[in-house]
Amino acid sequence: MRLSRYFLPILKETPSEAQIVSHRLMLRAGMIRQASAGIYSWLPLGFKVLRRLEQIVHEEQQRAGHIPMLMPTIQSAELWQESGRYNAYGPEMLRIRDRHDRDMLYGPTNEELITDIFRSSVRSYRELPLTLYHIQWKFRDEIRPRFGVMRGREFLMKDGYNFDLTKEDALHAYNRHFVSYLRTYERMGLKAIPMRADTGPIGGDYSHEFLVLADTGESEVFYDSRVTDFEFGDRAIDFDDRAALQGIYDQWTSLYARTDETHDDTVFAEVPEDRRRKARGIEVGQIFYFGTKYSEPMGAKVQGPDGQAVPVHMGSHGIGVSRLVGALIEANHDENGIVWPASVAPFKVGVVNLKQGDTDADAACEALYAGLATRGLDPLYDDREERAGAKFAGMDLIGCPWRITVGPRGLKNGVVELTCRRTGESEELSPEAALDACAQRLARAL
Amino acid sequence: MRLSRYFLPILKETPSEAQIVSHRLMLRAGMIRQASAGIYSWLPLGFKVLRRLEQIVHEEQQRAGHIPMLMPTIQSAELWQESGRYNAYGPEMLRIRDRHDRDMLYGPTNEELITDIFRSSVRSYRELPLTLYHIQWKFRDEIRPRFGVMRGREFLMKDGYNFDLTKEDALHAYNRHFVSYLRTYERMGLKAIPMRADTGPIGGDYSHEFLVLADTGESEVFYDSRVTDFEFGDRAIDFDDRAALQGIYDQWTSLYARTDETHDDTVFAEVPEDRRRKARGIEVGQIFYFGTKYSEPMGAKVQGPDGQAVPVHMGSHGIGVSRLVGALIEANHDENGIVWPASVAPFKVGVVNLKQGDTDADAACEALYAGLATRGLDPLYDDREERAGAKFAGMDLIGCPWRITVGPRGLKNGVVELTCRRTGESEELSPEAALDACAQRLARAL
Repeated sequence: MRLSRYFLPILKETPSEAQIVSHRLMLRAGMIRQASAGIYSWLPLGFKVLRRLEQIVHEEQQRAGHIPMLMPTIQSAELWQESGRYNAYGPEMLRIRDRHDRDMLYGPTNEELITDIFRSSVRSYRELPLTLYHIQWKFRDEIRPRFGVMRGREFLMKDGYNFDLTKEDALHAYNRHFVSYLRTYERMGLKAIPMRADTGPIGGDYSHEFLVLADTGESEVFYDSRVTDFEFGDRAIDFDDRAALQGIYDQWTSLYARTDETHDDTVFAEVPEDRRRKARGIEVGQIFYFGTKYSEPMGAKVQGPDGQAVPVHMGSHGIGVSRLVGALIEANHDENGIVWPASVAPFKVGVVNLKQGDTDADAACEALYAGLATRGLDPLYDDREERAGAKFAGMDLIGCPWRITVGPRGLKNGVVELTCRRTGESEELSPEAALDACAQRLARAL
Repeated sequence: MRLSRYFLPILKETPSEAQIVSHRLMLRAGMIRQASAGIYSWLPLGFKVLRRLEQIVHEEQQRAGHIPMLMPTIQSAELWQESGRYNAYGPEMLRIRDRHDRDMLYGPTNEELITDIFRSSVRSYRELPLTLYHIQWKFRDEIRPRFGVMRGREFLMKDGYNFDLTKEDALHAYNRHFVSYLRTYERMGLKAIPMRADTGPIGGDYSHEFLVLADTGESEVFYDSRVTDFEFGDRAIDFDDRAALQGIYDQWTSLYARTDETHDDTVFAEVPEDRRRKARGIEVGQIFYFGTKYSEPMGAKVQGPDGQAVPVHMGSHGIGVSRLVGALIEANHDENGIVWPASVAPFKVGVVNLKQGDTDADAACEALYAGLATRGLDPLYDDREERAGAKFAGMDLIGCPWRITVGPRGLKNGVVELTCRRTGESEELSPEAALDACAQRLARAL
């Protein structure tokens, strides 16, 4: 993208309403704009990141064998009356009356609707296991929305639902989500720690929250510091291999890691003192096994191998996609702006022309821009007539992992400058070598 | 995808509530399920088509230089009060009151919100031209939703907005949309005819609707039959070339083609009688130029080259993405089911195993399945233990462009059967030749 043709409304001043760094940087970098309290427009740069996260979530869900679909945002109240949650949900549910005076609502979650879809079409255990998911906007009418997209009212969530014949099968689905979430966050360049959690209004017996450690997190967490050493890495995974998934689950849950709701001082005291950590975390996902909590009252049954109809065992599993954009920035920034992990960076390489209008500089930039695009490296070319300082500040703010700086002086010596956003280190290279270096260093991020 | 692991709830009976063929086929093929009146869940097969259309729209919009972003579904009433449309809009607007008793609404369109974003950040004509678009769910509280996704209440739309310094520039943006829409529909395998249209509640001076001819269309249209001969084809387009775009616009609008709102009997009478057509059409898109209708009252101004602040010239441009799924089926089906154009088919090739459990047949199917997947041909492998008739009927219903049938008898002679869904013609080929034929015939559709 050429910046002269893009829409990147960078703010010079720090907006006073933003209390946390991710909110400030998203506003300053022209990623979002508040439409009304807790509701945001995703400007082009922000949308690009959001879309990239969505893509990673889709890929990892489908790798785990889960099937994408899409439920609507507006639901009828009837199913929620059937499950008993319509009255229980409280004022966070946005209730709506349509022109025919029917009670509707903006879905805050989808257990009822997916259970209704399931019960209307699945009859036999032979159609199981089944995990359906969607990535859709949700609404929770927070009394005090804050922290930008971290605690907004309209937010994008991946929510998935597993349907299994037995508890054992459903716990395998639980592990499948556990492992695929580890992969998902790691691929985004995030360290998210699974912690034993309370099940809250979703209900159920088992739940883990995935938390990104950050001072601005709203949750208090307690953990054994060694849990942060675990890495999923490149290991090949067969999501049908129950023992392998159980092994990964066992590894990650072998050490103490709990949210304040499940924290137990006595158990925590058994962790060696030098490894006991109390910190704050941002919840970026949660998984639940809740058995027959919805299938029983809503009559979601299948015929088992013995011909008997039994309610299915279910769980639900969510990733806060829009919130992740904020969490990523909380975990990846410095005093100059955002420092995107390469895999989620909206543009992988920035090209700065120090002297727009100079024939050599323009030609070199055009060649680099074309070369980067050909290699799929999604360059952002600052081709505006602006002073170098403003161009550098803008690039630092929006956080492209690599920057290539092109000026007439360097070109006389046949070099451009390649700068790493995270370390600030620069190298002088020929334009071709700079292209190759970008391609090589970004290969894993594409 | 292996059918045994997919969720494809095919209906045997034709649902009685569906009045038109696309609605019937979408329900029968397990593409959608009604959640409440005029609101649908997109089941996996339907979602896959929807997502594919969305992708084509994104690609063609970006090819034309338009910039993606995302505005929220829920808007505050304030901006609509400012533009004067809050009261004017009537009961089709879904009005909502939040927990703080603020008036909100589910956006039926986004002129106000995008104009607000524009005016808050763009100051100079040097930042123009600018066209921003998004693909987002909309809600119109239709009094009588019908025809499935063709006239639903919650629907997915691409809406784009251009901001230009002069009327001349804005008309170039109009042409850019005109041409990119021609490309978009043709790429989907649809013949959509641009027709002079009324501007309705959006307002403005110029408007074209894009209509797909179909007996079930809700619009009455009048046209010169020769307009259906125009094809966009493979021509290379530079979307900055004003004269080239004007030429295409002039060609397509040189012949009579109007909706009933703009129809003029006197002008129509000048069309040679044997070319005069009166038919029905499905509206799948509409473009508008409305000048300063929103920028003037909302103060969306830029400083021109002379330093004077002037309101920008705008237009808005929509494609009905979810409705297109229905329109595609209306235009592409036979008595056995859907006949997808290859470019939008959810799966490009179906593989039918005539004897699941037979070692040779299973091995041949697995090899074909892997070969098709490697070539990016998105196969659907019916690996269920079902009789052949049910497998064929299912494949015909969901409309994969090509089907490969594998049975022990054919394998003894070294052949499988390759069948074209549209023509019904079959060929016997070696498995390798069938793979190559699929890859070759589908190359343009990927």
